[in-house]
Amino acid sequence: MPQTANVNRRIALASRPKGAPTTEDFRLEQLDVPTPGDGQVLLRTLYLSLDPYMRGRMSDAPSYAPPTEVGDVMVGGTVNRVVASRHPKFAEGDLVLGGAGWQDYVLTDGSDLMRLGDAAHSSLALSVLGMPGFTAYHGLLNIGEPKPGETVVVAAASGAVGAVVGQIAKIKGARAVGIAGGADKCRYVLDELGFDACIDRNDPQFAKQLAQACPDGIDVYFENVGGAVLDAVLPLLNIGARVPVCGLIAHYNDQKLPPGPDRLPLLMGLLLRQRIRAQGFIILDHYADGFAPFYREMSAWVAAGKVKLREDIVDGLENAPEAFIGMLEGRNFGKLVIRVAD
Amino acid sequence: MPQTANVNRRIALASRPKGAPTTEDFRLEQLDVPTPGDGQVLLRTLYLSLDPYMRGRMSDAPSYAPPTEVGDVMVGGTVNRVVASRHPKFAEGDLVLGGAGWQDYVLTDGSDLMRLGDAAHSSLALSVLGMPGFTAYHGLLNIGEPKPGETVVVAAASGAVGAVVGQIAKIKGARAVGIAGGADKCRYVLDELGFDACIDRNDPQFAKQLAQACPDGIDVYFENVGGAVLDAVLPLLNIGARVPVCGLIAHYNDQKLPPGPDRLPLLMGLLLRQRIRAQGFIILDHYADGFAPFYREMSAWVAAGKVKLREDIVDGLENAPEAFIGMLEGRNFGKLVIRVAD
Repeated sequence: MPQTANVNRRIALASRPKGAPTTEDFRLEQLDVPTPGDGQVLLRTLYLSLDPYMRGRMSDAPSYAPPTEVGDVMVGGTVNRVVASRHPKFAEGDLVLGGAGWQDYVLTDGSDLMRLGDAAHSSLALSVLGMPGFTAYHGLLNIGEPKPGETVVVAAASGAVGAVVGQIAKIKGARAVGIAGGADKCRYVLDELGFDACIDRNDPQFAKQLAQACPDGIDVYFENVGGAVLDAVLPLLNIGARVPVCGLIAHYNDQKLPPGPDRLPLLMGLLLRQRIRAQGFIILDHYADGFAPFYREMSAWVAAGKVKLREDIVDGLENAPEAFIGMLEGRNFGKLVIRVAD
Repeated sequence: MPQTANVNRRIALASRPKGAPTTEDFRLEQLDVPTPGDGQVLLRTLYLSLDPYMRGRMSDAPSYAPPTEVGDVMVGGTVNRVVASRHPKFAEGDLVLGGAGWQDYVLTDGSDLMRLGDAAHSSLALSVLGMPGFTAYHGLLNIGEPKPGETVVVAAASGAVGAVVGQIAKIKGARAVGIAGGADKCRYVLDELGFDACIDRNDPQFAKQLAQACPDGIDVYFENVGGAVLDAVLPLLNIGARVPVCGLIAHYNDQKLPPGPDRLPLLMGLLLRQRIRAQGFIILDHYADGFAPFYREMSAWVAAGKVKLREDIVDGLENAPEAFIGMLEGRNFGKLVIRVAD
């Protein structure tokens, strides 16, 4: 169903998923395109970012952000063009970073918008120059604190956050070891992103290969997956290791805890014995203080070719649910972005 | 068996405990008192500190320090008097802090000794002014970082580390909530140490009472026990909470992990959602940089009556095994010290 004039397509949460989301949990709706009132801006969505955190919003389990209510539009960061404005600071044609969510159009008072200068690669505002890049930058530098010669490990290394973590680690003189799903992704992480090693998490010898790729142990483990990757990482953590805890995608569809034994005491004992610092963070906490300096430094790195990122661009808002479900299974290759309109 | 002239009694590790240590795991031996060679000092042990970390040295499981070998003397911090010296810097009668272990006499080259000025309360060098006090000070201030008005929770609150943690928390303007075993200890923690609340961990309503004692949640949890206390603390941890991980006495006798479910993902998810920092530390790492400033500040607090500590003094080296076993069960009341000689 392509977009037609005067119709605002939006994808709402139809039901809370039990375990892995299915397309039944989403509903495509058609509403009239709204008209801006005084002080309002009407935005057209060009790009929609799909990110793992959205799985959390679909549930009503306790989280750091309130859940999306059933019937509400799915949330999400977007690149938008102003198509009508009754706001003094925005004019038709302006390109902005916003939070329109999974829909063609949205009205806003402009307070949540950041103006985008360069239209050529505007989708980067959703990846390296946006939330995923800021997540990687803040978590690695402010919590992970990699030092030259240390070993930094990150999973989902071909994804938006992981790819940037490894590239910043290299900039800081550390060894970057990635973990990715499949030989193609591993080759890309090694050859294109310049990691020192990349291990295929689907390999039956995964844990052994990770140990071989980290002969001096692991000093920083940027945690964005959990599950079997964490299990393989734990015995390799060095004394004084840092573990920024950014995400746990392997568990987002869990409906109950895994069977025993209970390894909670094991983890606490490891933190103690190895003097490990594990620290969770939610990037939304850090925008006020941290986004501007991040954006400056990362823009320079991107311009210099020191940080790059493959994008996995899927055309059509109507394909967002399938693409999102695939991302949770690791089927995307690069930062997943929906091209909603040109 | 009291000590007699020219006999050095020592308590050696007879066997590695399976689970809780028994008196069979220790062996009392009698050797000749050695004679100092050139550059050596002969020390008489006056006080021996008994501390939970010693349980770790009895095992050959991986740890931060090599295990005590079967047949070797048990390790431990001691207050000693120099009884013979062929070392230019020490004279007969000097009072020193050393590491003689569980024995009457030891020879040393002096490099491991700290001179003690005030003989009146020399056993304090094994508690508030020694390793337990330094552990509390470093862990609470450098990792816990309590702020005025925040809630600090610590277990084993009548013990050497816990008691000091709570009293420093009060000095820093935080609310101190202790956990201790039994009504007597709780009364002491409240009335003598000045904590704001103290919960009896043996109460069937323990978890509920802890929650009631922490109406604003927990900002700093100084972890020295693990087990059921940690279970009750986890749901109360505030956003941005800090968890210095200092010890896990509830698990030191464990021979295998507890039954499931596996709560490792639960803990990781909690760190993430609540942006918690959990950090293990081993106080031995911090002596070079931290002990002198700690000693200065803590001496002033002790002199001013701001930090105090009950000592549980047991007479006789031969009673150390029973006393140690009792400590692991929480039967001591205050810092456990063996008076080996006057």
